[in-house]
Amino acid sequence: MRIDIISVFPEIIKNFFKHSILKRSQDKGLVEVHMHSLREYSIDKHRRVDDYPFGGGAGMILKCEPIDRAISLLKSQRNYDEIIYTSPDGEIFNQQIANSFSLYHNLIILCGHYKGIDFRIRENLITKEISIGDYVLSGGELASVIICDTIVRLIPGVINDEQSALSDSFQDNLLAPPIYTRPSDYKGWIVPSILLSGHKKKIKDWELQQSIKRTRLLRPHL
Amino acid sequence: MRIDIISVFPEIIKNFFKHSILKRSQDKGLVEVHMHSLREYSIDKHRRVDDYPFGGGAGMILKCEPIDRAISLLKSQRNYDEIIYTSPDGEIFNQQIANSFSLYHNLIILCGHYKGIDFRIRENLITKEISIGDYVLSGGELASVIICDTIVRLIPGVINDEQSALSDSFQDNLLAPPIYTRPSDYKGWIVPSILLSGHKKKIKDWELQQSIKRTRLLRPHL
Repeated sequence: MRIDIISVFPEIIKNFFKHSILKRSQDKGLVEVHMHSLREYSIDKHRRVDDYPFGGGAGMILKCEPIDRAISLLKSQRNYDEIIYTSPDGEIFNQQIANSFSLYHNLIILCGHYKGIDFRIRENLITKEISIGDYVLSGGELASVIICDTIVRLIPGVINDEQSALSDSFQDNLLAPPIYTRPSDYKGWIVPSILLSGHKKKIKDWELQQSIKRTRLLRPHL
Repeated sequence: MRIDIISVFPEIIKNFFKHSILKRSQDKGLVEVHMHSLREYSIDKHRRVDDYPFGGGAGMILKCEPIDRAISLLKSQRNYDEIIYTSPDGEIFNQQIANSFSLYHNLIILCGHYKGIDFRIRENLITKEISIGDYVLSGGELASVIICDTIVRLIPGVINDEQSALSDSFQDNLLAPPIYTRPSDYKGWIVPSILLSGHKKKIKDWELQQSIKRTRLLRPHL
């Protein structure tokens, strides 16, 4: 998979891609991440990429032209499955969307910043608007990293133990059961005895019951 | 505000606090962020912080002891308003929660990693479990940055133009209206003429109508 991230501040996030599974997936040749600084696509002599909003109001808006130039250049080089814009009013990201994105070959993620991008880009160039949640970030850069981290770990081979990703919360629409590790008694806090019983069938049943109970309590919509 | 982040991999995210508003808020003395490496709180001679799950299954689990030691030390030094654990099954983070967190003085954020933390920590030490969305990340580190970014920008003085944060999406339970900047005609893509009219009252009415329309379409629950 190839992911192209377009941002006015790539330096905020570039370090993330040098760590953790985002680094490992690239080292293994399973994922290529390319960062593009929006300023490099400005033909303004001051490399300006933002301007004041029409109609007044506070905050700056990212202009059409550098974004159009950046996306058009990438599209001339290969086909993209999706051109994503990270925006608080986009479709709410979830594990199902992550699963579908993880099957793609080429993705562009355009990060909003300041008050956002000129709406005409959203109408004409963006194929999918994604929000990672109902809250406002200082920019879409963090949202782009969240999307990358979530989808990259689903690509076969990225996580060594594939079982580990498949048993995550949400993959079967159930939250994970409570988990415990040694010691079985820590300062009087005791691990449920069933987990120490060695009885595999009973343990599996208990874990499933706990998953269902926690899902009903915490995520009744799942 | 003081934020203490406890993580087994602080290097993944520490760079983020050197950029953007998280840096600016610290430079202005409005926010203090302290990163704590969980390994430093392990008394194991190999600084081990994880172990296999009781009952079998894939993935490693963060042990009680280093987490308990880290949190206990911090609690002995000052009072914390909330001890947050980032977990996919926590309460779904939103702008209202961000607003309430932004009024706090001291916060601990414990980042999960691998399959998560020993459940006894959640039962005994954590006061609030937060999920940034219904998807699985490779660790809670990114979630902790999302929480910090969202709340820090709400602290008065962090964003120069306070108007800008107040006019964000969600603050009035409405999504933002479409926004545009120069040129008014880009390759035949035209800005709505009302925004060029100079008629402030009509522009405000149009923006409110657009906000309501977009909210009904995209976030009917708001």
